[in-house]
Amino acid sequence: MDVLRVAACQVNTVVGDLGGNVERVLDALRQAEEAGCDLAVFPELAITGYPPEDLLLKPGFVADNRQALDILAARTGSCAAAVGFVDVGQDLYNAAAVCVGGAVVGTYRKRHLPNYSVFDEARYFQPGTGEPQLFRVAGVAVGVSICEDAWNPAGPIARAAAGGARVVVNLNASPYHAGRLAERERMLATRALDAGCALVYVNQVGGQDELVFDGASLVFGDGGELIARAPQFAEHVLVVDIEVPPPFRKRLLDPRGRPPVECLPAVELPERPASKRPPVAHRPLVAPVLAPLEEIYAALAMGTQDYVTKNGFSEVVLGVSGGVDSSLVATIAVDALGADRVHGVAMPSRFSSESSLQDALQLGRNLGIDVRTIPIEPAHASMLEMLAPVLGGREANLTEENLQSRLRGVVLMALSNELGWLVLTTGNKSEAAVGFSTLYGDTAGAFAVIKDVPKGLVYDLCRDRNRRAGRELISEAVLTKAPSAELRPEQRDDQSLPPYEVLDPVLAAYVEQDRTRAELEASGFDPSLTALVVSLVDKAEFKRRQTPPGVRVSEKAFGKDRRVPITNRYQG
Amino acid sequence: MDVLRVAACQVNTVVGDLGGNVERVLDALRQAEEAGCDLAVFPELAITGYPPEDLLLKPGFVADNRQALDILAARTGSCAAAVGFVDVGQDLYNAAAVCVGGAVVGTYRKRHLPNYSVFDEARYFQPGTGEPQLFRVAGVAVGVSICEDAWNPAGPIARAAAGGARVVVNLNASPYHAGRLAERERMLATRALDAGCALVYVNQVGGQDELVFDGASLVFGDGGELIARAPQFAEHVLVVDIEVPPPFRKRLLDPRGRPPVECLPAVELPERPASKRPPVAHRPLVAPVLAPLEEIYAALAMGTQDYVTKNGFSEVVLGVSGGVDSSLVATIAVDALGADRVHGVAMPSRFSSESSLQDALQLGRNLGIDVRTIPIEPAHASMLEMLAPVLGGREANLTEENLQSRLRGVVLMALSNELGWLVLTTGNKSEAAVGFSTLYGDTAGAFAVIKDVPKGLVYDLCRDRNRRAGRELISEAVLTKAPSAELRPEQRDDQSLPPYEVLDPVLAAYVEQDRTRAELEASGFDPSLTALVVSLVDKAEFKRRQTPPGVRVSEKAFGKDRRVPITNRYQG
Repeated sequence: MDVLRVAACQVNTVVGDLGGNVERVLDALRQAEEAGCDLAVFPELAITGYPPEDLLLKPGFVADNRQALDILAARTGSCAAAVGFVDVGQDLYNAAAVCVGGAVVGTYRKRHLPNYSVFDEARYFQPGTGEPQLFRVAGVAVGVSICEDAWNPAGPIARAAAGGARVVVNLNASPYHAGRLAERERMLATRALDAGCALVYVNQVGGQDELVFDGASLVFGDGGELIARAPQFAEHVLVVDIEVPPPFRKRLLDPRGRPPVECLPAVELPERPASKRPPVAHRPLVAPVLAPLEEIYAALAMGTQDYVTKNGFSEVVLGVSGGVDSSLVATIAVDALGADRVHGVAMPSRFSSESSLQDALQLGRNLGIDVRTIPIEPAHASMLEMLAPVLGGREANLTEENLQSRLRGVVLMALSNELGWLVLTTGNKSEAAVGFSTLYGDTAGAFAVIKDVPKGLVYDLCRDRNRRAGRELISEAVLTKAPSAELRPEQRDDQSLPPYEVLDPVLAAYVEQDRTRAELEASGFDPSLTALVVSLVDKAEFKRRQTPPGVRVSEKAFGKDRRVPITNRYQG
Repeated sequence: MDVLRVAACQVNTVVGDLGGNVERVLDALRQAEEAGCDLAVFPELAITGYPPEDLLLKPGFVADNRQALDILAARTGSCAAAVGFVDVGQDLYNAAAVCVGGAVVGTYRKRHLPNYSVFDEARYFQPGTGEPQLFRVAGVAVGVSICEDAWNPAGPIARAAAGGARVVVNLNASPYHAGRLAERERMLATRALDAGCALVYVNQVGGQDELVFDGASLVFGDGGELIARAPQFAEHVLVVDIEVPPPFRKRLLDPRGRPPVECLPAVELPERPASKRPPVAHRPLVAPVLAPLEEIYAALAMGTQDYVTKNGFSEVVLGVSGGVDSSLVATIAVDALGADRVHGVAMPSRFSSESSLQDALQLGRNLGIDVRTIPIEPAHASMLEMLAPVLGGREANLTEENLQSRLRGVVLMALSNELGWLVLTTGNKSEAAVGFSTLYGDTAGAFAVIKDVPKGLVYDLCRDRNRRAGRELISEAVLTKAPSAELRPEQRDDQSLPPYEVLDPVLAAYVEQDRTRAELEASGFDPSLTALVVSLVDKAEFKRRQTPPGVRVSEKAFGKDRRVPITNRYQG
C-alpha cells in the first residue's frame, strides 16, 4: 500500500507580515522535511495572514505577497509545500500554491467564497473555475481545496476524489467559536467518507484582532475515521503517515447536472530518494479536545496574548474593582502574559466599599500581580464643583455615576500613555448588549477581553479556572456577592437590570439568533422583559461602535458578525 | 406621440421604520397622483430604508417588510408606484414592486449587487436572473432596474430597451461623495443614448449613519439629453412628461454571447380615465447643481441633521476652542439644526490663550448660539496630584496633554448625560488619519461631523460659508492663526506634523488611493515624509475604530469603505 507522509503545519501568522510569515512557514517546512514528509500543508493565505481585509485593495500589497511566495518557493527542497497566498489573474483569487524543488509547480483557486458572518471574501476575490488539478506526490494523486470548499457536499473535495485524488488537503483559516470543532469534525468525516479519500485539514492558529483561530488540524482516513488531531491553540507540526488504499473512484452525481468527473490531470512532482523518508517513529498524535470551559478560556487567553504582542506591547493594565469581571480578565491576562506583565489599579470612589477594595487587593496577591490604589476622590470632587452650575443641587443621578467611571478611564489612560501599558477593558457581553457601561469610562481601553462572554459564563469560567488551579485565584467572596457598579450608595446591578440568569437567555435569542420581539414573546419570554431588553440592546448600538475589539468566542459576537445600523427605528 | 407622465419621488426614508416609510411613500404618491402622473418611482429599498444591514438577517424583519409593502400596495390608486423592497424566494432579493389599483402587479429583482466600498449586498442578497419583465403603463412599455444595474453597459437597461421598453426606471440608494453627481450624469446619459430609451433615475435623499444620499434624481431622453433634475439634498417629487418616440429597437450585442433580446413580455397596467391627466402645467425642473464647496457643505449639514433627528435628539453640544475645526462644526450644526439647538462649551486650560477663548466667544456671538465657559483647571490640578506618584517630577509630556483633552471629554459627556444633548466631535480627516487626537478626549462624542474633511478643505469650507453669508461667521483671525491644540505652552500643530498643505496630498494618495510606501516614493513624495505618514496612519487604526461615525463626503472615508486590520505589520 502506498504511504504518503504529510505534515499539517498550523502556524501562527501575522497579518501583513509577509517576510515574517515566509520565515514561519519555512521553519515548519524544515521540521516536516526532517521528519521525512512528502508534503507539508499550511493554512489559507498563510503568506498574508488571515484576514488581510482591505490590504487586498492595494495592488502593491498583492504584488509583494506574490514576491514573498516566490522567495518561499525558491527555498523549498524535496518536501512539497501547499501554501495559501493571493493569486492575481483577471482578478484576485484566494489560492494555494504547491511549491517544491525551488519553484511553484501549480496553484489552486478557492471555489466557494464565504461572505457571511465575519467573512467578506466576495469583497476581494473571484471564485476559481474549472475542474481542479491534481498533484502526484510520491506516487499518490493529491487534490487541493481551501476552507469553505470543504463545506459543499458536491464541491472540490468530492470532485477531486472522483477525478482520482486519493488524498485531498484543505487549507484553512477557520475562526474559533464554542462548539465549532465538533461541527467541523463531523462535517469533515462525512466529506472524507462520501468522497472516499483521505482528508488533511490544516487550520491557522492564533489571534487576529477579534478573531482567534484554534488550530486543531485534523487528518481523516478514506472511511471518515479520525487518524490524527493537532492540539488546539498552539503552533504544531503534525506528522502523519497516510496509508493510501488503491483508488476506488465514486461516481459523482452532481446536483448541478455537470457530467461526472472522469480523470483529472495531475502535475507530477519529482520523485525523492528513498533515503529521505525515515521509518515511522510514532503513532500519529490525536490530541485531546479541551473541555468546553477550558477551551473558551484558552481562546480568550490566546486572543489576548496575540493582540498584545502582535501589536508591539508587552505589558497591560486594567482597573480592578473587586468584581467578578475584572477578576476574570486579570486572571486571563496573567495566563496569557505572565504575572509580571499585568498591572492592576484599584480606583475607589466615595461610594466604593472597603470590602471591594480588599477583594481587589486579594486578587492581586492571589495572582502575584502588582495592584496600586489611586482613589479618584480629588478629581471627582473637582469635577462636581466645576459642573455645579449645570448639575445644580439636585440628587445625584446617572450623570454623576458616569462621571466616576470616566475619571477612572482618564487615570488608566494616563498610566497607559506614561508607562506604555495597553489597557484591557473588563465589560462582559451581557453588559455590552444592554449598554450597562459608561462610554469612555469602563469601556476605555484597547482590548475587551471578555466582551463576548455573557455574565453567567463569566462565573462559570472563574469557577472552572479556580478548580483547575486547585485554589481560589478568584475568591469565593467575589463569586458570591451581588454584582454592583458601586457608583451610588447601595447600588446593585439588579436594580437596573433583570438578574443575569433571566437576562442572558433573552439576549442570546435576540442578539445571537436574530429573533424579533414578536418572536421572543411567542416563544414564551415575558413581554415587558422582552420590550425592555430589545429597546436597551438597540439603543446601545452607538456605544458598541466605540468600544474596543475583543475575543470572539460565540457564533455571533458584537463585531464584524453583527453589522446593524445605529440609526434604526425597527421595533420588531 | 405617446406621453408618459412620471414622478421621480426622492423621499427621505429611515432605516427600519417600515410603517413610517410606507407613509412617506404614500404622501409622495398622493402628490404624483394629484399631478396626474401615470407612474411614480421611489428609491431602492424604500420600504426598509437603505442600507438595512444585518436587519436583513432577521427573517421576522423581512416578513414585516413584505407586509408593509402589501399595506402600501393596498392603498395605491390609478397612479402606479415602483417601490424598492426586500423580496423573498429561495433566498433574499433586492427588488422593486410595481403596485397599482390596490395590488402588487409585478416585481423586478436586482441583477448586479455591489459588494465593494461601503456596499455589502452579496452578504444579504442573491442576484435576480432571467430576462426582465416589462410593464405597459398608459400604453408605454416600461422597464425596471435597480441602482448598480445601470452601471453595466450590457445590463438590464440595455436588455429591457432591446426587448421593447421605451422608458426604463432605475431605483437608487446612491451615496454622495464629492464629484459623484457628474459621474452619474455622464454614465446615465450614455446608458440612455446607447439603449435608445428614456431613463428615469430616482435617488434616495437624507443621512443614514455615515452615509448621506444626495437625491438629485434625473430624467434623460432617449438621445441621452437631460430633461429634468431634482434638487440635491432635499425631498422632492419631480414630475416630468416624457414624450416617448415610436420604438426604435437596437440590436443588443451581448458580450457574453447571449442571443439578442427579441420581445419581452409585458404586464398590462389598467388604463386610466383621460380626465386623470391634467394638462402639463410647467416645464420640467432642471435644478441647478450646487457649486463644489457648497455641495460638500450641504452634505455635511444634511448628514448631521438626519443623524441627530433620526436618532431622537434635538439639541447638540460641542467644545469650541476658538480653532478652525470647532468653528466649522458649530457653523454646520447651526445650519443643520438652528442656532437655538446648538450649544458651545469653551473649556480653557492653564495653557489656553486668552485670544482663543475670545475667538470662541466671538463665534458664539456670530452664530447666535450660547457658549458657556467651564475652565478645566480644578480637575486638571487634582488629576496631576493623584497621578504624581506615576508622573513624578519630570517635565510634562504627551501624558499631560492627553489628560487635558480627556477632562474636556468628561465635561462634555456630563453635559450630554444631564441635558440630553448629543455631543458633536470636531476632528478633521487629516487628524484622524495621523492620529493627531486624544482617544476619549477630543474624539469623545456621538457624531464626527467633519471626520472626512481634510484640513485644507476645512479652511476652504469656512471661507466659502463666510462668502455666502456675506459676513464673517468664522472670524478671519481664526482662519489665519497657526493651528494649535494648546495643550502645552507655545504649542503649534506644525511642531508635531508637516504643514497640512504638505500632509494632505500624501494622505490622499495613501488612504484614498491605496498606494504603498514604495509607490508614494516613486511618485515623488519625500521618503522621510512618506515613512512618517505611513507609520502614523497605520498606528492610528486602533483609535479610528473607537471614534464615532461622521458624514462621508469622499470616495474613501474612514469607515465602512476602509476596512483595514488593527493588527497589521505590513510596512509597504
